[in-house]
Amino acid sequence: MRWNIDPQSLAETILQGDRLALARACTEVENDSAAGEQVISTLFQKSGKAHLVGITGSPGTGKSSIVNQVAREYRLRHPDSRVAIIAVDPTSPFSGGAVLGDRVRMRDLVGDEQVFIRSMATRGALGGLSRQTTALALLFDCAGYELVIIETVGAGQSEVDIVRLAHTTIVVEAPGLGDDIQAIKAGIMEIADILVVNKADHPGVEATERALRSMLEMAQGRIRINTGHHGGELGMTGKSIQTSPAVAWMPSVLRTVAIENKGTREVVDEIARHRVWMEINGRWSAKEHLRLRSDLVNRLKDQLFDHWLGKFTESQLEGMVEQVMARKKSPYQAASELLSKV
Amino acid sequence: MRWNIDPQSLAETILQGDRLALARACTEVENDSAAGEQVISTLFQKSGKAHLVGITGSPGTGKSSIVNQVAREYRLRHPDSRVAIIAVDPTSPFSGGAVLGDRVRMRDLVGDEQVFIRSMATRGALGGLSRQTTALALLFDCAGYELVIIETVGAGQSEVDIVRLAHTTIVVEAPGLGDDIQAIKAGIMEIADILVVNKADHPGVEATERALRSMLEMAQGRIRINTGHHGGELGMTGKSIQTSPAVAWMPSVLRTVAIENKGTREVVDEIARHRVWMEINGRWSAKEHLRLRSDLVNRLKDQLFDHWLGKFTESQLEGMVEQVMARKKSPYQAASELLSKV
Repeated sequence: MRWNIDPQSLAETILQGDRLALARACTEVENDSAAGEQVISTLFQKSGKAHLVGITGSPGTGKSSIVNQVAREYRLRHPDSRVAIIAVDPTSPFSGGAVLGDRVRMRDLVGDEQVFIRSMATRGALGGLSRQTTALALLFDCAGYELVIIETVGAGQSEVDIVRLAHTTIVVEAPGLGDDIQAIKAGIMEIADILVVNKADHPGVEATERALRSMLEMAQGRIRINTGHHGGELGMTGKSIQTSPAVAWMPSVLRTVAIENKGTREVVDEIARHRVWMEINGRWSAKEHLRLRSDLVNRLKDQLFDHWLGKFTESQLEGMVEQVMARKKSPYQAASELLSKV
Repeated sequence: MRWNIDPQSLAETILQGDRLALARACTEVENDSAAGEQVISTLFQKSGKAHLVGITGSPGTGKSSIVNQVAREYRLRHPDSRVAIIAVDPTSPFSGGAVLGDRVRMRDLVGDEQVFIRSMATRGALGGLSRQTTALALLFDCAGYELVIIETVGAGQSEVDIVRLAHTTIVVEAPGLGDDIQAIKAGIMEIADILVVNKADHPGVEATERALRSMLEMAQGRIRINTGHHGGELGMTGKSIQTSPAVAWMPSVLRTVAIENKGTREVVDEIARHRVWMEINGRWSAKEHLRLRSDLVNRLKDQLFDHWLGKFTESQLEGMVEQVMARKKSPYQAASELLSKV
């Protein structure tokens, strides 16, 4: 059943806590529809309060169990709060739907009306996953959700992009997952605010912890000598200490056995501690600025393209693609030529 | 040392087989520079011959060893050919460089002047990885490389985007890598042309193979009922069989022990077989069309944005970001307002 959407009344219904209305708005936002934009624009002034927590790591580390326990513990501590979970599943570029969602693991949270779980159905758009995820997080923020957990499976480039836009990034590891994982950790290590060794009852936990600490040192060393603008954004560098009064955040390494709910309370403590640190050191608004600017720029790019495309017919664009196919023009030359006609 | 670049003479030097010139052009292309574009535009009419093979899978499956053996075997069979390997490493968004490259594993290929290995250093651009990789693949195609292997570590959204643009996609699995990997496979399974179970001397190989086959059946079933346009692009659907005479490609499941060079010759056979199938069924040019169109559209988006940005000062854009930060406007409203001033 598809009913007519009045974004204004949809927004009001969401504020009243209607979960069906929120689910509907999620779909609109994922579909990049005008209605989704209007719902967010209507509620936007209420946003800016949510703590966005990204959680990532290799397959098999038990991220979902940690998300489960963190959400539960947070709700126990803050009975009036709402928690949203965005599970970014690797999905089919064809079917447009999540294949094996993480919902099934979230049994502990079922029945808690203040927890909203959304499994992302990506549409395979180039660079679209990260954009959709931030838009969805913004919607939850607008709807009064105070904790928004973004769980990404794997640690590819999109995943790094997604967690870069969160306030707090948790990287999860588990003992005995093989050598290749080292390479993946290296990339993500530099954006980690909290490190968790899950399945800490398994053999090899000391070795994993040791490896994490030494990679952390490597990463910190590399950040310290990097004098580019990125360091300043996150304030973890020697450089940014010179230019701002920020005290560096030192990621801690925590052990958990999430399925037995061991050590997860300390994770929630650490998330809270990181939030306080961010607020004191001006990092909260720096992150916000980075994310909103990136939202704005992406939106501009899309709208410019749509606007421009309206001046041409599909067959004109297709004709240029044919010339590229025939090797008469390179894609660069074709783009310049099309643009020169505007 | 940074010397002046004359794209025209750089292009000529590349055609003479100069590896240093090619490496230099790779850097220009990765940096998205005007010189990089000009080199590709100069050589573009020579392109369209390279077979782009994407290889992906979870960490620990031994992808690099397979790439190594496939490149070696291909060179043995085609002594006059050139092979390029693009290793897309998960890298730091800060350092701008690959942290642990796959080069170290490629010992067998060292000394073969006709094999060129490039480890991708991504710059953390949203959606940029996939764009850079296709541009690099196009450069190798222009430079006369007949086989271009793109190895992606992990299986996130960017990785799916990357391999979607290859002619042939190989998905690698290994026994005993845990449950969560199933979820990852599901997303990538639908774009797999060849499935490889590596480390086939390890226990559990039958179970892995069985799981792969059943996921393959699931994926094929899902593709068959999907009547959208995506199916038609790849011609693996019931729908596209009705609209085109293409015979469906049935991905086979091959076993390898790559570090002992067992089974890798069959992988090379299968790659060749897939190429022939594509050419006969019009899929080769369909893939080409999809990739070049996507190149052109992305280029247009970037150029439109650059052109538009030139009309504003950075402080005007920044002023709008501040209004968004102050919750006076949503990112959508801000984008529309900025655009209306053009």
